[in-house]
Amino acid sequence: MNQDYIVPDNWSIIEEGFNPDTVKASESLFSIGNGAMGQRANFEESYSGPTFQGSYIAGVYYPDKTRVGWWKNGYPEYFAKVLNAPNWIGINVFVNKEELDLAKCKKVTDFRRELNMKEGWYERSFKATLQNDIEVQVVSKRFLCLDIDEVGAIRYTVTPVNSDAKILIKPYLDSGIENEDTNWEDKFWDTLDVKFDEDKAFIVSKTMKTDFYVSTFMKVEVDGFSRCNYENNSFKTPTYASIDFEKEVSKGEAFIIHKYGGYCTSMNHDKHELIKASKEVLAKVAAVGYDKMLEKQKQAWARIWEMADITIEGDVKAQQGIRFNIFQLNQTYLGKDSRLNIGPKGFTGEKYGGSTYWDTEAYCIPFYMSTKNQKVARNLLTYRYKHLEKAIENAKKLGFDNGAALYPMVTMNGEECHNEWEITFEEIHRNGAIAYAIYNYTRYTGDYSYIKEMGLEVLIGIARFWYQRATYSASKNKYVILGVTGPNEYENNVNNNWYTNYIAKWCIDFAITHVQEIKSNSSSDYTRISEKTKISEAEISNWLEVAKNMYFPYSEEYKIYLQQDGFLDKELVTVAHLDESQRPINQKWSWDRILRSPYIKQADILQGFYFFEDHFTREELERHFNFYEPLTVHESSLSPCVHCIQAAHLDKMELAYSFYLMTSRLDLDDYNKEVHEGLHITSMAGTWMSIVEGFGGMRVKNDMLSFNPKTPKEWKNYSFKVNFRDQVLKVFVEKEKTSFSLEGDKELTILINDKKVTVYPNNLITI
Amino acid sequence: MNQDYIVPDNWSIIEEGFNPDTVKASESLFSIGNGAMGQRANFEESYSGPTFQGSYIAGVYYPDKTRVGWWKNGYPEYFAKVLNAPNWIGINVFVNKEELDLAKCKKVTDFRRELNMKEGWYERSFKATLQNDIEVQVVSKRFLCLDIDEVGAIRYTVTPVNSDAKILIKPYLDSGIENEDTNWEDKFWDTLDVKFDEDKAFIVSKTMKTDFYVSTFMKVEVDGFSRCNYENNSFKTPTYASIDFEKEVSKGEAFIIHKYGGYCTSMNHDKHELIKASKEVLAKVAAVGYDKMLEKQKQAWARIWEMADITIEGDVKAQQGIRFNIFQLNQTYLGKDSRLNIGPKGFTGEKYGGSTYWDTEAYCIPFYMSTKNQKVARNLLTYRYKHLEKAIENAKKLGFDNGAALYPMVTMNGEECHNEWEITFEEIHRNGAIAYAIYNYTRYTGDYSYIKEMGLEVLIGIARFWYQRATYSASKNKYVILGVTGPNEYENNVNNNWYTNYIAKWCIDFAITHVQEIKSNSSSDYTRISEKTKISEAEISNWLEVAKNMYFPYSEEYKIYLQQDGFLDKELVTVAHLDESQRPINQKWSWDRILRSPYIKQADILQGFYFFEDHFTREELERHFNFYEPLTVHESSLSPCVHCIQAAHLDKMELAYSFYLMTSRLDLDDYNKEVHEGLHITSMAGTWMSIVEGFGGMRVKNDMLSFNPKTPKEWKNYSFKVNFRDQVLKVFVEKEKTSFSLEGDKELTILINDKKVTVYPNNLITI
Repeated sequence: MNQDYIVPDNWSIIEEGFNPDTVKASESLFSIGNGAMGQRANFEESYSGPTFQGSYIAGVYYPDKTRVGWWKNGYPEYFAKVLNAPNWIGINVFVNKEELDLAKCKKVTDFRRELNMKEGWYERSFKATLQNDIEVQVVSKRFLCLDIDEVGAIRYTVTPVNSDAKILIKPYLDSGIENEDTNWEDKFWDTLDVKFDEDKAFIVSKTMKTDFYVSTFMKVEVDGFSRCNYENNSFKTPTYASIDFEKEVSKGEAFIIHKYGGYCTSMNHDKHELIKASKEVLAKVAAVGYDKMLEKQKQAWARIWEMADITIEGDVKAQQGIRFNIFQLNQTYLGKDSRLNIGPKGFTGEKYGGSTYWDTEAYCIPFYMSTKNQKVARNLLTYRYKHLEKAIENAKKLGFDNGAALYPMVTMNGEECHNEWEITFEEIHRNGAIAYAIYNYTRYTGDYSYIKEMGLEVLIGIARFWYQRATYSASKNKYVILGVTGPNEYENNVNNNWYTNYIAKWCIDFAITHVQEIKSNSSSDYTRISEKTKISEAEISNWLEVAKNMYFPYSEEYKIYLQQDGFLDKELVTVAHLDESQRPINQKWSWDRILRSPYIKQADILQGFYFFEDHFTREELERHFNFYEPLTVHESSLSPCVHCIQAAHLDKMELAYSFYLMTSRLDLDDYNKEVHEGLHITSMAGTWMSIVEGFGGMRVKNDMLSFNPKTPKEWKNYSFKVNFRDQVLKVFVEKEKTSFSLEGDKELTILINDKKVTVYPNNLITI
Repeated sequence: MNQDYIVPDNWSIIEEGFNPDTVKASESLFSIGNGAMGQRANFEESYSGPTFQGSYIAGVYYPDKTRVGWWKNGYPEYFAKVLNAPNWIGINVFVNKEELDLAKCKKVTDFRRELNMKEGWYERSFKATLQNDIEVQVVSKRFLCLDIDEVGAIRYTVTPVNSDAKILIKPYLDSGIENEDTNWEDKFWDTLDVKFDEDKAFIVSKTMKTDFYVSTFMKVEVDGFSRCNYENNSFKTPTYASIDFEKEVSKGEAFIIHKYGGYCTSMNHDKHELIKASKEVLAKVAAVGYDKMLEKQKQAWARIWEMADITIEGDVKAQQGIRFNIFQLNQTYLGKDSRLNIGPKGFTGEKYGGSTYWDTEAYCIPFYMSTKNQKVARNLLTYRYKHLEKAIENAKKLGFDNGAALYPMVTMNGEECHNEWEITFEEIHRNGAIAYAIYNYTRYTGDYSYIKEMGLEVLIGIARFWYQRATYSASKNKYVILGVTGPNEYENNVNNNWYTNYIAKWCIDFAITHVQEIKSNSSSDYTRISEKTKISEAEISNWLEVAKNMYFPYSEEYKIYLQQDGFLDKELVTVAHLDESQRPINQKWSWDRILRSPYIKQADILQGFYFFEDHFTREELERHFNFYEPLTVHESSLSPCVHCIQAAHLDKMELAYSFYLMTSRLDLDDYNKEVHEGLHITSMAGTWMSIVEGFGGMRVKNDMLSFNPKTPKEWKNYSFKVNFRDQVLKVFVEKEKTSFSLEGDKELTILINDKKVTVYPNNLITI
C-alpha cells in the first residue's frame, strides 16, 4: 500500500485536507529550495503535533562526533553533517490570546497545500476553529528567490471568519534550534548577536568547530503598522528575536504580514560584515516588494523549465512525477558553486550526514550535463579533484600507500562521513563511479581539458587503489577482490563482487589509456603530472598485470556472471514469491536474514551492464536482466531507473513503465515508507535518465548522440531537450514518429535507430 | 614488547616502584573479589592521575540504551551492562591540610603492591613526600571476605616519617559514581538515603530502571577516637558520607584506621530492610575484628587451594601464572548462586557489557566441574535453561519460529547485550557451545538428570535453530550455512564456516540421540517434554535430512577442511612474516584489511578439533594444526589454551610451552596491550585446561578419566587435582614418571597412556 494523498496535477503538488499523520511526509514533499538554501514545509505558526523542523544552508556543516557501537580502526573521529539552520520563517499567531496551533484546534477545514513547480512557490491555506470558537482563515505563500538566493519571502494572511478578534502576529527568528539526529547532544550553534533595526531583525550565530558565521535575518511589513511601532514591540532572548503586531481585526478583514528572510554567511561575505550584507539584501528586497519578487521568481523558473522540462501527454501522474523530480533537482543544486554538491536529501532532511555520494557521479551528472551545460558538470568533477588529497589520506588510513586514493562513501568536505565498516571500508566501488563520470563527461562533451588539467591525477590515484586492493589468488591464478560491498548493499563483505571487479579492471585500463594519451599528445601536462604523481612505466605494467588477470565469477549453468562468489548457494526464490507482509525487507527482516537471502537492493551486475552497455550483447543483457531483476526488491531509490532503462532497451515496455512510475513517484507515493525523513534527491536524476535514456534511448556513440525512441502505451507523447556540446536538441516522441529540432546555428548529425541523420537549426525532422 | 614489571613469585603478584603509567594496569591486576562483589585495585586516598575506578556487585546491572551507528532490525533497544557500584573503600588523607595524592607528591618511594593469592589479601605501601615536605609512610591492606561475602576490610596506616604532623583521615562512602563507558550519559544510580549511626554510615541507592536496591555501608575504627566523637564529625551530601578524624601525630607514630564496608542488596534482602541487614553484617564483623577476619580469610582461601591448586616446580613465572589464573577465577565465581555467571572481565572492568559469553560453556565449565563439583557445573547449565524462553524470543526477533532458540552472544539476564550485526546476528556458533557443554557435563559427571530435567528442551530449541538456519543449496545439493561469523572473529559474514557447520550438524545429531534416549527410557519425562515442545517424529526426520547432508568446505590440494568458503583465495602469508610493528593487527589495521587477510584471531577449525578430538585422527589434527596455527595471531585470549592442548597432544612441546606462557601470563605480561581495561577472566579457565588437558593429557574416555602426561622441559614437575564423580584424584607429574593418588573410599579405574589402571584410596600409584 503506497501513499496516495497527493492530488495528481500536471504542474503542482497538491494536498487537500488536514491529516496530522502526513504532516512529516508533506513537510518533505512540499520542501522548497534555491540551491543556496532550503527548508522543509514546516508551518510558520506553532504546531505541537509531530513535525520534523528543518532549514538548511548549502555548504554549512558541523563535524559531529562519530557514533558507533564498536569502534574500528580507520573510522574518522568526526564527520561533517548537514546542520539544521536558524529558523527565519516562524510567525506565531494569537487569536484573542489563544495561540493558533493546528494540533490544538477544535476543527480544521479547507486545508490545502500547493507546491507550484512551474512558478516556484508554496502555498498553504486552511480554516481553523480555535478552542475559543473563533474561526480564522489563513493563507501563507512563500518562496526562496532564485535570483537573490540569500532571501525568501512569505505573505501570511489571517482573516477572522465568524467574529471580530484581537489578533497578535509575532514573526520571529530563532537560532535555538537542534538537529533531529544528534550524536552526543552537543550544541551546534553559538549565537553571537541578536539585533533589531526598525522593521528588521538579525541573529548572528556561528557553527561550533567549523566556524561558519551566519546572519539570519528578517524584515517584516505589516499593514497598518509603521516602522516606528516596531521597535517598541520587539522582544529578544539570547537566541531569539520577535516583533509583536497586535490589532483588533474585524470579521472578514484580512490581517496581512509580508516577511522576508534568509541568510548571509561567511562563505560569501566577510564574517564581520554579515549584518551589513544582510541589510543590503533586504534593501534590494524592499526596493522590489513581494509581488515583483514573485514575478521574478516565475520568470526564473520559466527559464529553468524552458531547458529542463519534460512533457508527457496522456498520463498526469507520470507528468507530475517527472516535473517533481526535475523541480527538486533544481531546488537542490543549480551548478553555480563548485564548492557544493547534490546531497541525497537535498534541503529536505538530515539523513545520511554529508552531501555527496557516488550518486552524483553515477546518476546526477548526466542530468546536469544535458539540462544545464558542460560547465556545471565540470564543476562537479572539479569538486572531486579538490578532494583528491583527502582521498589519498583516507586510503592511507586504511593501509594503502603510494598515492592510492579512496574517495569517501559520503562527504561534505572530502572527509568520510559514514561509519559502518561494511560500507565505509568495503563499498569501494564508489571509486569506480568517479572514474566513470570522467569518462562519461568526456564522451558527452568532447572536452578533454578536464582529464588533462585534473582528471588524470584522479584516475592515477584510483588505479593505484585498485592495484593495491586486488589480491593474487594462487588457487585461481587470478587477481581477486576480497571483502567488499557492491552497489547491492544487501550483501556485505563478499568476495569478487562482479561489478566491483569489473569496474576496477576498467578503471585501470582507462587510467592507462589516458596516461599514454597525455604522454603522447600533451607532453607538458605529462611532465607536470608525472612529477607530481611519480608515475612510471613499471608501475603501469604492474597495473596491467592485475587488470589483465582479474577474476570474474561466472556460472556455466546459467551462462551469467555471478553477483559474487557463492551466489548460487542461496535459495533462489524470486521476489514474486515473497509475501507482501515481509516488505520492505529492510524494515521487516533482521540484517543477517537479508544478507543470506538472494534479494538484491538495487542494480549491481545490471548497474555494470548499464555503465558498460556496449561491452555486452543484447542477449547477454537480457539473460542477466531476466536472472537478476526477479530477485531485486528495489529498496534503494537508485534501483528502478537503471532497470527502467534496461527494460525499455529490451522492449519490456510494461515493466519499463512500472519502473518509471516507481522512480518518478518514489517520494510522492512513498514506495519505501520513509518520505517523512526527506526526499530522495539523487535518484530523481535517475528518473530523468529513465525517460531520456530509457524511453528516448539516448546514448553517445562515436561522438554522436544516438536515439532509439519508444513510447509506453499509457502515454500519447512526450518530449525532452538536451544540451549537447552547446547545441540544444529537442526531441518529441509520439507513438508512430519522433521529431527532432535544433536550436543554435550549425547542424548536428545524430543517430536515430542506428542510422545517421543530420538535423539543421530550426528545421524540424520527423522520423 | 610485553610488559614485565610484575615481580615473579610463587604465591604473590608484586609490583615494586611507583609508575603512573602502569596504575590502570595494576588496578586490573591487583583486583580483588569474592564471587559476590569485587573491585579494581584503586587507591583508597585521592589520586588525580589516570585511573579507572571500579567496584562491582555480582548480578547488579543496568539496561543501558544501545549505542550503534546504524540501527539494524533485531537489535535490542536496551542491554544489561555491568555497573560501577558505589565506592566504599575511599579514605582521604590530609597532612597538615595538604591532601595526599600520589600524582601531586614531590617524591614517592618504596611503593609496593602485593596481591597475596595464597591468603587472599591485597597490600599497598609507600613513602611519599608531600609538597609541604612532610614525608609519610602509608600501608594499606584490604580483602573481601569469602565467608561473609557482603563485606570487606581495610587496615590503613599513616605514619609521618620526618616530622610531627596534623593528620586528617576522612573515610567515606560515595554513590555519585559513573561508568567509564556510558552510552548516553544517563545516571545509573538514584541515591535514596544517606545515614550515619555512630561509627557507621549507610548510603541506600537504587539502580535506575532495574530497581536493584543497594545499601553501601561502612564502619570505621580509629585508634584514639571513641564512638561519640564520630557523630560530630560526620559530613554528608546527597550522594556522599564521610567522617573526619584529625589528630596531631608524632613523627614515627602510626595513625591507624580499620574500615569495614560492603553491600547488602535487594537480590538477597528485603529492599526496605537493607540498612538493618547492613547493621547485622557489621555487627558480625565487630564481633570478630580485623585480625580474626583476616585469619578466616586465609583459612577460606586455604580450602580453595587445597582442591584447586596446581603446583609447578622449576619455573616461577609459570607457577605464578597458573595461580593467578586460578585465584582470579575463584574471585569471580564460586558457584554458590545459579543466578550468576562468569563475566569475561569478572570484577575487574566494564568492557563487554554483560556477563556471560560462550566462554562459560566452552572454557569455564571444565575448570569448575573439576576443581569444585558437579553441582557448580550444573548451576551453570541451569542458568541457560532459565534463559531458554528468552533465547526463543531472541530467535523469533531474527525471523525463526517453532521454538527455535538462539542464545545471546553476551548476556546478563537472558537478553542480548551486544550490537554488531556480524556478531550478534551471525556469531551463532555460540548455540553449539551450549549443547556441547551439556554433552561435556554429562560425559564427565555421568549425571543424566540435567538432560532429562532441563537439557533436552535446550537441545531441541538449539536443533530447531540449526535446522531453520541451514539453507539448501541446489548448486551443491547440500545444506549450507550462509552468512556467519565463526569463533575466528577476524572473518565476518562468511559462508560455510566449517566449525559452525560441524557443530550445527553435531547439535542436531546429539539432540536426536537424546530425544530418542528419553523417549525409550524415561517415558514420563518424554511426555512432559514433548507436550511442552510439540516435538514430532516428522520434525526429527527433517532435522536428520539437514544433518546428514551438511556441507563442509574441503581442499583436496591440502587435504584439509577450509575455515570457510573461499579461504584459499587469500594471500596465505604466515604470521611469522608479519612485521612486529603491525601487531596486534586489531590495533594497527583497519577492519577490512583484517578481514581480507588470512590471519586468524583464535582457534576456529582447531576449536572444532578440540571439542571433537575423537572424531579425527592424530594425522588429521596435525595437518590442520600445521596449516592453521601459522596463520593465527592469537589476539583472542581464548586462543593460546586450545593451541597449547593440541601442541602438547602432538608432542610439539616447545610450542605448547610458549602457548602456556601466553595463556597463563596474558594479563600479567599484557600480551594484547589492554590489561588496563580489566582482566581476561574466562580464558583463565583455558590456562587450567592447558595444564590438565594439555600437559596432563586428561580426557574422559568410555566413562573413565584418561591421562597422557608430558612435562615441558622447563619444569621439574607439576601437580593438579581433579574431582571426578565425587572422588578427588591427585596427579603428580615428573619428567620420568607420574604418580596418582586418590581421596575417598572407593577405587577408581583410569586410563594412563591408554592402559587401564586402578587407583585405590590413599595408595600412591606411580607409572
